[in-house]
Amino acid sequence: MQLVKDIGEQGLLAKLQLFCDAEIVGDDGAILALQPKHQLVVTTDVLVDQIHFCDRTTTAFDVGWRAAAANLSDLAAMGASPLGITVGLALPGEVTIAWVEELYQGLFECLQQFNTPIVGGDLCRSSVTTVSITALGEVTPDKIIRRSNAQVGDAVVITGYHGLSRAGLELLLNPTLGKNLDRQEKEFLIQAHQKPQPRLDVISKLQKIDCSSIEIAGMDSSDGLADAIVQICRSSKVGAIIEANTILLQPSLFKLVDSKQVWEWILYGGEDFELVLCLPFQFAQALINQLNTGAAIIGQITAEEQVVLTDSNKSNFSQVLTLAKGFQHF
Amino acid sequence: MQLVKDIGEQGLLAKLQLFCDAEIVGDDGAILALQPKHQLVVTTDVLVDQIHFCDRTTTAFDVGWRAAAANLSDLAAMGASPLGITVGLALPGEVTIAWVEELYQGLFECLQQFNTPIVGGDLCRSSVTTVSITALGEVTPDKIIRRSNAQVGDAVVITGYHGLSRAGLELLLNPTLGKNLDRQEKEFLIQAHQKPQPRLDVISKLQKIDCSSIEIAGMDSSDGLADAIVQICRSSKVGAIIEANTILLQPSLFKLVDSKQVWEWILYGGEDFELVLCLPFQFAQALINQLNTGAAIIGQITAEEQVVLTDSNKSNFSQVLTLAKGFQHF
Repeated sequence: MQLVKDIGEQGLLAKLQLFCDAEIVGDDGAILALQPKHQLVVTTDVLVDQIHFCDRTTTAFDVGWRAAAANLSDLAAMGASPLGITVGLALPGEVTIAWVEELYQGLFECLQQFNTPIVGGDLCRSSVTTVSITALGEVTPDKIIRRSNAQVGDAVVITGYHGLSRAGLELLLNPTLGKNLDRQEKEFLIQAHQKPQPRLDVISKLQKIDCSSIEIAGMDSSDGLADAIVQICRSSKVGAIIEANTILLQPSLFKLVDSKQVWEWILYGGEDFELVLCLPFQFAQALINQLNTGAAIIGQITAEEQVVLTDSNKSNFSQVLTLAKGFQHF
Repeated sequence: MQLVKDIGEQGLLAKLQLFCDAEIVGDDGAILALQPKHQLVVTTDVLVDQIHFCDRTTTAFDVGWRAAAANLSDLAAMGASPLGITVGLALPGEVTIAWVEELYQGLFECLQQFNTPIVGGDLCRSSVTTVSITALGEVTPDKIIRRSNAQVGDAVVITGYHGLSRAGLELLLNPTLGKNLDRQEKEFLIQAHQKPQPRLDVISKLQKIDCSSIEIAGMDSSDGLADAIVQICRSSKVGAIIEANTILLQPSLFKLVDSKQVWEWILYGGEDFELVLCLPFQFAQALINQLNTGAAIIGQITAEEQVVLTDSNKSNFSQVLTLAKGFQHF
């Protein structure tokens, strides 16, 4: 296997430029044109080997796909359309060329769905593989989705199922867990983990429901559904009541673990990359009508500054959701 | 000393947000407005502990300053004005909080000279400290400086002295080398290494010489003066004759090492972050008049595709400049 140190920086650059936009790359910086009246949206993510991915659960292709998906998801969470990404890559010399090419193939294929180019990057040596992505998008000021826009009375919408990515990860780590699932069910959950889809389609669908008169609050659920709702409420200085009953559940999850664990995954599992949006009920319903199964109105924004999960099927069930169980990076 | 692992991601984020633009940071992405008719310029750099910096020669403040300077220099090399930077930081839990705060202080102070905010970032755990910067700038299409714009007959301009950064580094690594320098001379060279200035001032000065009718070629000399000239000539499919006589020399360099070594530093030392520009002679002269000592016309673009260094004081002296001696990252 050919290694990075065998062909050096220039050799590797020549191979990686095939994945990049030749029109844009090749100077000290890349040039991108925004549409008139659009503003720039920027988001950045750093992924480190053994922390965010490892060979046991993630191929190089998947690392690339997931890195692109996570950043595009952040753009979607702002209401923006993607313009391009930059890739900063720090690599040990012992990494194979094939690994790096597969990483770029994963980035490229995820981006290609949205006609989004790789517009630049940097390549350097390190003792640990580190992938830094900055994604650039554009949005008109009236369509910006902000965490702080939630209004008392807004509906809380999720754009799809939760807990699937975490279930897929557990299946990869512990295949015997899936003994009650058929091949298709397993594949579905593993795909949810390995090839998540950023919900840029939701942004186009928002255009269709003519909601230009309202401000939409939102973020993505990459750090978990509970985290997203709590973050939005904190930023907006409001609370929410979430009705557990209205959250649609993937039946296959209950063939893996017990109900308590399923709810852990749904609320705190993370990496589902759905959007959590707050907007008036009539618009929320119009949006749901455009989306697939899994999308739902799951609750309402309240004036009292806490996020409460209730279940109308169980009297006395009430749980306050917090950030505490969310993923801690240190 | 308090460590990163003692206060965790949220604790550290709270401290670092003091250095960031509160108006802009806090959502999944940052929003930035470009001026009408401007295009976006993006450039990215990854710096790794023990590869690009080490505690022996670089304080955390200097790492931050140099990282900001290098990225702003890339914007200047494109003819752009800065809009903001993002900072992706991967850190071992054992790094001190003080180190991280000093890093941000360095970034902040360098950026502040140009009213440029930190608009976002990411923070994660790693086994090696890694700093990924993406800088964003704006430029009108007619003012973009490209490597590929050089025309036969253009003057080759440098905006200041070369070799100083490398001299400063050598002084730090080997202080006895400076036995013939006074304190001020030493300080000057060490500052050139530790606190280089991105030449964004040159971009404003170009506006003053009314050169909107011409296309300017250029890049920065961060990888060495020879590298910059060769890269421009390759991209533009031209060559150049550089007259060694016209390159201004800092006298203190000759008190450190012999003349051969001084020329190595000037041509291949790198990290001087000056601009190398190619433009018609009358504009080149008008620009030089605006700049300080060190700036000079050092040669001319030729049709023959090689870069030749000559010295009119020495008959038969002629050397072909190549990338070969440039810094190799693997």
